[in-house]
Amino acid sequence: MIFDVMTLFPEMIESYCCFSIMKRASEAGVIKVNTINPRDFTLDKHKKVDDTPYGGGAGMVLMAQPYVDAYESIGRSENSITVMLSPQGEPLNDGLVNELASYEQIVLMCGHYEGFDERIRDIIKPKEISIGDFVLTGGELPALCLIDAVSRKVEGTLGKIESADEDSFSNGLLEYPHYTKPREYRGLKVPEVLLNGNHKEIAEFRLQQSIERTKKKRPDLYAKYSEKSI
Amino acid sequence: MIFDVMTLFPEMIESYCCFSIMKRASEAGVIKVNTINPRDFTLDKHKKVDDTPYGGGAGMVLMAQPYVDAYESIGRSENSITVMLSPQGEPLNDGLVNELASYEQIVLMCGHYEGFDERIRDIIKPKEISIGDFVLTGGELPALCLIDAVSRKVEGTLGKIESADEDSFSNGLLEYPHYTKPREYRGLKVPEVLLNGNHKEIAEFRLQQSIERTKKKRPDLYAKYSEKSI
Repeated sequence: MIFDVMTLFPEMIESYCCFSIMKRASEAGVIKVNTINPRDFTLDKHKKVDDTPYGGGAGMVLMAQPYVDAYESIGRSENSITVMLSPQGEPLNDGLVNELASYEQIVLMCGHYEGFDERIRDIIKPKEISIGDFVLTGGELPALCLIDAVSRKVEGTLGKIESADEDSFSNGLLEYPHYTKPREYRGLKVPEVLLNGNHKEIAEFRLQQSIERTKKKRPDLYAKYSEKSI
Repeated sequence: MIFDVMTLFPEMIESYCCFSIMKRASEAGVIKVNTINPRDFTLDKHKKVDDTPYGGGAGMVLMAQPYVDAYESIGRSENSITVMLSPQGEPLNDGLVNELASYEQIVLMCGHYEGFDERIRDIIKPKEISIGDFVLTGGELPALCLIDAVSRKVEGTLGKIESADEDSFSNGLLEYPHYTKPREYRGLKVPEVLLNGNHKEIAEFRLQQSIERTKKKRPDLYAKYSEKSI
């Protein structure tokens, strides 16, 4: 899986990819993260990538030319998708993550400052994806969230000790509670059922806990789960 | 505003805070981001912070002792809140970001691997916040999203050239389209109204565009906006 990230701050992307599971997956050749900086494509001698908005208002707007030229420099495989990170996009969720994981290449367009010149959208026509109804300084953190979430679904990223199958949302429910050593900590004990080695009882307990949590914390998810189960 | 981030990967947090607006806000003393590593609080000579789950299953679980001891080492002001980043939490949105910006100190608990020993939740009783229905390798990216979004609301973070007032969601709508130079790019022209200098017409055009986009892309947001406007 190749991620081509268009960003004015390539170090933000590169530094995250040096850690933990992302690092391992890169080293194993399972994922590859490239960065493309629109600043390298500006025709202006001051390497200007943004300018004030027509019609007035605060903030700087990313200019079309450097961004579109940078985009067109990226070699694209047949099985690729272009995604703009934007608060106006479709919310990222586990279903969308699975869909994205089926591509060979994802081109990610990060904005910064006040946003993109609208003609960048008009020309590139990306799929717009949002990670939530809040505003960030740039698209870099949402891009990293998408890369991390999608990479977890790519075969070979998670080792034997990890698992995506038991994560929250994988069965439409929130995850059950986890316990590790010691059996008692500050008077709080691990539930007896987890210690008895009866796998059927443990599975039932965990499913029951997942259902209860989801009902309480996310009634919207639980409603969807109930519909599917009928 | 002080952010105390509990994480096994302090460099992930620190490296992001060296860029762009976060860097400027730190240098100006408007925000301060500290990291606390539970690994420094383990009583185990191998500095072990996780272990296998009781009841079996994939993944490693963060142990209670190092995490709780690390938490208790943090000096807390009266006007502070403790937040666990978790897919089980309340979704982060612009309203919650505003609420969080009213605190002096936010302690952020990042998990990693399969999750927290449940007794960490039982003892610390954090507010749980999620950035969406997808699973990440750790809480570090959600913590950075929260820090970035909240920092933007803290006075002094955004300079005169930026503005949070005109961002998406600030008026309950998605943002209107932006345009900057040149007037024409690959045959696509800037809308005439933005060039005529009539501020009332420009404001009307932008509001209309915001409304149309929100109706089309986010009917759920538009429904809330219409209710408020009646």
